[in-house]
Amino acid sequence: MPVNYATPAPEALFPVAGVRLGTAEAGIRKKDRRDLTLVELAPGSRAAGVFTQNRCCAAPVTVCREHLAGDGSLRALVINTGIANAATGEQGMVAARATCDAVAGLLGCAPREVLPFSTGVILEHLPVDKLIAGLPAAKADLAADHWHAAAQAIMTTDTVAKAASRRIELGGKTITVTGISKGAGMIRPNMATMLGFVATDAGIAAGLLAQLAKDAADQSFNCITVDGDTSTNDSFVVISTGAAGLELDTASPHWPALRDAVIGVAQELAQAIVRDGEGATKFISVKVGAGATAEECRQVAYAIGHSPLVKTAFFASDPNLGRILAAIGYAGITDLDAAGVRVWLGSGNEEVLVSENGGRAASYREEDGSRIMKNAEITVRVDLGRGTAAATVWTCDFSYDYVKINADYRS
Amino acid sequence: MPVNYATPAPEALFPVAGVRLGTAEAGIRKKDRRDLTLVELAPGSRAAGVFTQNRCCAAPVTVCREHLAGDGSLRALVINTGIANAATGEQGMVAARATCDAVAGLLGCAPREVLPFSTGVILEHLPVDKLIAGLPAAKADLAADHWHAAAQAIMTTDTVAKAASRRIELGGKTITVTGISKGAGMIRPNMATMLGFVATDAGIAAGLLAQLAKDAADQSFNCITVDGDTSTNDSFVVISTGAAGLELDTASPHWPALRDAVIGVAQELAQAIVRDGEGATKFISVKVGAGATAEECRQVAYAIGHSPLVKTAFFASDPNLGRILAAIGYAGITDLDAAGVRVWLGSGNEEVLVSENGGRAASYREEDGSRIMKNAEITVRVDLGRGTAAATVWTCDFSYDYVKINADYRS
Repeated sequence: MPVNYATPAPEALFPVAGVRLGTAEAGIRKKDRRDLTLVELAPGSRAAGVFTQNRCCAAPVTVCREHLAGDGSLRALVINTGIANAATGEQGMVAARATCDAVAGLLGCAPREVLPFSTGVILEHLPVDKLIAGLPAAKADLAADHWHAAAQAIMTTDTVAKAASRRIELGGKTITVTGISKGAGMIRPNMATMLGFVATDAGIAAGLLAQLAKDAADQSFNCITVDGDTSTNDSFVVISTGAAGLELDTASPHWPALRDAVIGVAQELAQAIVRDGEGATKFISVKVGAGATAEECRQVAYAIGHSPLVKTAFFASDPNLGRILAAIGYAGITDLDAAGVRVWLGSGNEEVLVSENGGRAASYREEDGSRIMKNAEITVRVDLGRGTAAATVWTCDFSYDYVKINADYRS
Repeated sequence: MPVNYATPAPEALFPVAGVRLGTAEAGIRKKDRRDLTLVELAPGSRAAGVFTQNRCCAAPVTVCREHLAGDGSLRALVINTGIANAATGEQGMVAARATCDAVAGLLGCAPREVLPFSTGVILEHLPVDKLIAGLPAAKADLAADHWHAAAQAIMTTDTVAKAASRRIELGGKTITVTGISKGAGMIRPNMATMLGFVATDAGIAAGLLAQLAKDAADQSFNCITVDGDTSTNDSFVVISTGAAGLELDTASPHWPALRDAVIGVAQELAQAIVRDGEGATKFISVKVGAGATAEECRQVAYAIGHSPLVKTAFFASDPNLGRILAAIGYAGITDLDAAGVRVWLGSGNEEVLVSENGGRAASYREEDGSRIMKNAEITVRVDLGRGTAAATVWTCDFSYDYVKINADYRS
């Protein structure tokens, strides 16, 4: 069960003019489930993406990078679950290209106007014939209001579909931003996460779209971790169809509002992944401030967010908070003065100082820590006492079910 | 239950001339257990140590560093379990110094000839009065053959006591090397691990002893991980009493044999910690070779050894080996050519090639992987295909019991 997250109802996912989605059962790995998603984009659409830094990246990631290297114009996405098409060598590249060729033939566009995405088991070959055989059914299913079905079709170990949508009025026009994501394990995105897609019908020029994709990733998918494992397939793509008839650039008075909407949707999607993190029972925000650089704040936040000892203590609602101090200490800031570090624990409107001057705060009471730890939403706030930079990481706790899910996965 | 490890019998732990050990119940945190250990060293003994790089290191670690900064001459170690005396600020330093003062008074030596060590819960204050009150009983218990009892007294979440001992003949004299260690969680030593002590009655000069301690740590405690959490209290100390009447230096023909014995004992102790890793059901050796540098080989070996996804797959005996490729890919070698990486899985005399050319090896059969994964001792061998450097890391799998132990610890 995810922590305080429910999939928006289908009618709350607003169609994006110029985007149609269709799903089908291709039998990639399991029977009787929709495992193939086709997204058709109107002519004139553009996309920009950020992808995993994993050196063993999946074949579709390599193909996406190639296809986005041009002017960013795009006509389709094709996504399969079941097999990640990662660590599949040259055969994997052939399969990813064949998938794009088949979609291009079906929709009447160039193969380089198609982006392929895969998610699932690594080191197994994609049954590309089954995938291609499923494409006509996905095409027949194309509809503007199928965002909800697409969010379901891209799931793997996710327990709920993840989607977010906003409508804003800009210059007398209604602009929509809608997105979907998937992921629950192998989550420690490095540039982006395992399949996040956000589309808007506002028009955004290619260069600006690339910057927006990077900024949105840095403020959303690049701030989460479930288990510290950076996936081979992480992909986050922002699409601009321009079909709403409003072209935007940074000089436009409407740009900040659209930028906020895109980043807001990306944050909702990223946080949904953590809320549905494998075995998660708690959602934990780690906010590190007063650092010398944002990078060192991120290091500390991730050290806390990755520590199995911290995460199991949260699972147990045990304020064994020395483990947080230990994680701060080994985060890699070699000249950190432990005496200058302060740590607070909070939930809702309550926040208590846990540690200062290199030890337990005189005002800290174990019962305060215990009470806060029982909540499902907890904030750890750290002040490094050495600067003005800050960073936030969202993570979840570490439970029996994480082990169960990952010991059973594939079976 | 540890993986293929049993504590040596008391009589298999050979006394080291010049070393006596005593234990007592001080009631530091729990009743009815020996939680205080005193080690008395004959005049003329020397020690060298390596300690945690954690910036929130414990007070006794700071005191150890100060006391070893002189000529290394040493007369006693004092070790308590229950409370780590870490993240305890100035009060923690006062407690560690008071402990040394008390031992010095009891044994008739200088406080700086005493090294203090603590292990247990972080962020709670050491009941130093109880510790000091327990010292006379520990002194009364001093005996040369109490290594086994000392190994038991320093345990926390360990399920078995850890000790190793060797006798070698050098220059017509019998030289003994005996050591004990403890640790099962918060194990990712960075210079050393949570309490490892090795003593020899050979005489070794101070500078050489320091180099030996570092070399032994680098080949033993610095090659292990259970959960990736670097402790606040990691300490590894090598003691030379010289009581056997044989003084050694690097020019001595006997030096290589003694060095091997000390490193061998350290490796046994370090591996025992992994074999008794919290919840461990398997012992996994990760051997990375053909790297450009030893450091990048270590990075890759630790990425594999820390991955919760790899570790849960081992727990499940599921050859979901793509997770290993993913970990290699995100280990931080930014110019790694995935096509040049080869991965083998082995146990005992069997080894199978799993991956090459960026994908699954043509010869690899799932049933081979499944069969090997069922063993309790498994080797993952990685060839990075870019140089001649190598590194080994020892780790364990990740089970329900890891979560259970760490969700319950303290309670």
